[in-house]
Amino acid sequence: MNQRVTVGLIGLGTVGSSVVQVLTQQRTLLQERCGIDFQVKRIAVRDRHKPRSIRVDPQLLTTEVQEVLTDPEIDLVVELMGGTEPARSYLLKAIEGGKHIVTANKALLAEHGEEIFTAAARHQVDIGCEASVGGGIPIIRAIKEGFVANRFLSIFGIVNGTCNYILSRMTAEGGDFATVLQEAMDKGYAEPDPTLDIEGIDSAHKIAILASLAFGVQIPFHRVYTEGISRIDQADIRYAQEFGYKIKLLAIAKEIEGQVEVRVHPTMVPSTHLLYSVEGVYNAITVVGDQVGENSFIGKGAGGPATASAVIGDIVEIGRNITQGSVLRVPHRSYLPQHVRASAMRNIEDIVSEYYLRFSALDKPGVLSKISGILGANDISIASVIQKGRREGGAVPVVMMTHHAQERNVRRALQAIDQLDVITAPTVLIRVENFTR
Amino acid sequence: MNQRVTVGLIGLGTVGSSVVQVLTQQRTLLQERCGIDFQVKRIAVRDRHKPRSIRVDPQLLTTEVQEVLTDPEIDLVVELMGGTEPARSYLLKAIEGGKHIVTANKALLAEHGEEIFTAAARHQVDIGCEASVGGGIPIIRAIKEGFVANRFLSIFGIVNGTCNYILSRMTAEGGDFATVLQEAMDKGYAEPDPTLDIEGIDSAHKIAILASLAFGVQIPFHRVYTEGISRIDQADIRYAQEFGYKIKLLAIAKEIEGQVEVRVHPTMVPSTHLLYSVEGVYNAITVVGDQVGENSFIGKGAGGPATASAVIGDIVEIGRNITQGSVLRVPHRSYLPQHVRASAMRNIEDIVSEYYLRFSALDKPGVLSKISGILGANDISIASVIQKGRREGGAVPVVMMTHHAQERNVRRALQAIDQLDVITAPTVLIRVENFTR
Repeated sequence: MNQRVTVGLIGLGTVGSSVVQVLTQQRTLLQERCGIDFQVKRIAVRDRHKPRSIRVDPQLLTTEVQEVLTDPEIDLVVELMGGTEPARSYLLKAIEGGKHIVTANKALLAEHGEEIFTAAARHQVDIGCEASVGGGIPIIRAIKEGFVANRFLSIFGIVNGTCNYILSRMTAEGGDFATVLQEAMDKGYAEPDPTLDIEGIDSAHKIAILASLAFGVQIPFHRVYTEGISRIDQADIRYAQEFGYKIKLLAIAKEIEGQVEVRVHPTMVPSTHLLYSVEGVYNAITVVGDQVGENSFIGKGAGGPATASAVIGDIVEIGRNITQGSVLRVPHRSYLPQHVRASAMRNIEDIVSEYYLRFSALDKPGVLSKISGILGANDISIASVIQKGRREGGAVPVVMMTHHAQERNVRRALQAIDQLDVITAPTVLIRVENFTR
Repeated sequence: MNQRVTVGLIGLGTVGSSVVQVLTQQRTLLQERCGIDFQVKRIAVRDRHKPRSIRVDPQLLTTEVQEVLTDPEIDLVVELMGGTEPARSYLLKAIEGGKHIVTANKALLAEHGEEIFTAAARHQVDIGCEASVGGGIPIIRAIKEGFVANRFLSIFGIVNGTCNYILSRMTAEGGDFATVLQEAMDKGYAEPDPTLDIEGIDSAHKIAILASLAFGVQIPFHRVYTEGISRIDQADIRYAQEFGYKIKLLAIAKEIEGQVEVRVHPTMVPSTHLLYSVEGVYNAITVVGDQVGENSFIGKGAGGPATASAVIGDIVEIGRNITQGSVLRVPHRSYLPQHVRASAMRNIEDIVSEYYLRFSALDKPGVLSKISGILGANDISIASVIQKGRREGGAVPVVMMTHHAQERNVRRALQAIDQLDVITAPTVLIRVENFTR
């Protein structure tokens, strides 16, 4: 005999439609796997009469979100509208009403997670947020449960399919950023306003959530260093290849000596690491635990069915809690609330990384000596150099890979170098990750 | 205030020692993450006085396994002795006593899972077995929970680090199987008796467990087709490379039209698939779900700390159940017992695959025509051919890749071909997996 869990939805876009469709299509499967009949009772939408890609009983639709938030029969509210407001107010209202929450809203959790989780703890409701990071990849479950015996050293990931698609295309086929972005928009791989994706903000939301859960700390979102891909030049993609690297938009979080660094930026990844081979709309996330070592997860990072898989994974998780009379079985933030620390965030100037530097220099004797002199004086040692093409009297690229150096020193050195009269354009800096520390 | 969960261990080898060590080292972490103090009360060992790699209170050690199985204070028995007997009897005894079980014993679960899980359902105890497959990779949790909304189409994996290490070395550095195996044994990467690993039996145990959980079926272990790596020849590794493939020992499970095929054999994997790049002691498992698509997991497949990470993940899972007063929250076999089906197993002769075939033929006119004639008559079409080296009157290799064909037809064709008087040695058959169906 199946028990019933009643679900209300907010939002019926791509993911919402897939959730409704999969809950219907897999109803028998879910009953066989957990003995629960999940019933969608109400769906809040902006427009009841908009044509939909799925068949849905019009009686379920309402434009009054309160009918979802306050219906006493609804056990669980699934929020799939996105954005911080009014999603934040809606979820706080649902939580106050004692409803469990499943959400795919990374912006909300990254920017207002503290408030949401505190309210959920006060009102003793569960929150599932697997779909907020990495589409269908069960990474949050792994961090909170499978790897519970580990202290995490670092997390690296390709968590934005739009950027990965654009960089993959630019690498495989050439073309400048603007052209490839336009193609991606035409094909529906990029949003009509792609800013959140291409400027790295979406990736920053996701890594802030992962870092917070893995390290058991609060991550003030404005402290996440964020740099997008819009300034990536074909020249740098080609030089990367000569050194055996690809440029990926990487989200990186590390805990080093009690300090947490969280950053998103274009990164050169070596051909020896599996992130190198992750192309197109795939996401990949690598976690390093002190016991388990390096573990990687690869899957589709977006799309209706993959994201619905994660959403329903959470719905089932909470459904099992409800039918077992259990709640807050796994702490919201992976640590018990009293053990979630305010984080000591490391500034971007304090990080240590390897760097790719491309100088635009006049082709004159002594230029390399001047550049390397300033680098040396700033404690930056050079791992390799490519100097190409002689253009008598004109500008030529001088490309270097450095050993590990502190970002503060690199910035200071570049400031000095860019003021040299033999330098004709601002130096390009791209961080390199060889996954050695 | 922490609650206490009391643990008894059977076995204190590599993994057992790591479990004790990590439980001690991460005691604070575990309390912060789940509010439970896990206390190891008793450890059954063969020899109390054997020197150990870890410090352990000698009072905890006993040679009387009954002291673990019947101690009323022990909530949870962790079995890390391996092998089917007496592990089977011990676990049944513990289950009858109402103790929850965590085990890394793949042989036991693959060969006697039915009996163990049935007993556990009758006595209402939980069983954690994450560590039985893929070391620290949280794959079982993903199949049972994260991907609960999916029907699985297939699972592929490299799940034996010893074989992967040997094949990686043979590919990278040459050398025949026997030599590389000896090196692996000298370095401790292979057991003194490596049969279970190199003959594919260990991989077969693991894929039987995964297939059973993913498809919700019973897998009679003797029906798993198993072929090891001991007959892999350098020649085939080289030809694989020419076609753009590597040879990996792959464990494969598919559900096709209600039939389940489960098999382990050397397999050619294309350079375009990420399993191609998984080297050495790493394991990789790819699952394909009808909603989530292809998801891959990569990590260390063995070793004390990685395996302990999985064991403790299960200990914590059950600890959470105990402290929440919840049991059988997630069904043992991922489906409720009444929905676990007897499987319709597909015979190896009925599978459809692409094939690599290496014929040893006399270098005479008309040989290729004879071979391809017999293949054609058996409904096998050729995708490409390499014919190398002319040795006047001697034997030369003729190497072919086929399109999809039924194994029965291929076997029948090879039987006929190997009887030709122009064929000088039995034909080598290696299955090819392009992950297209």
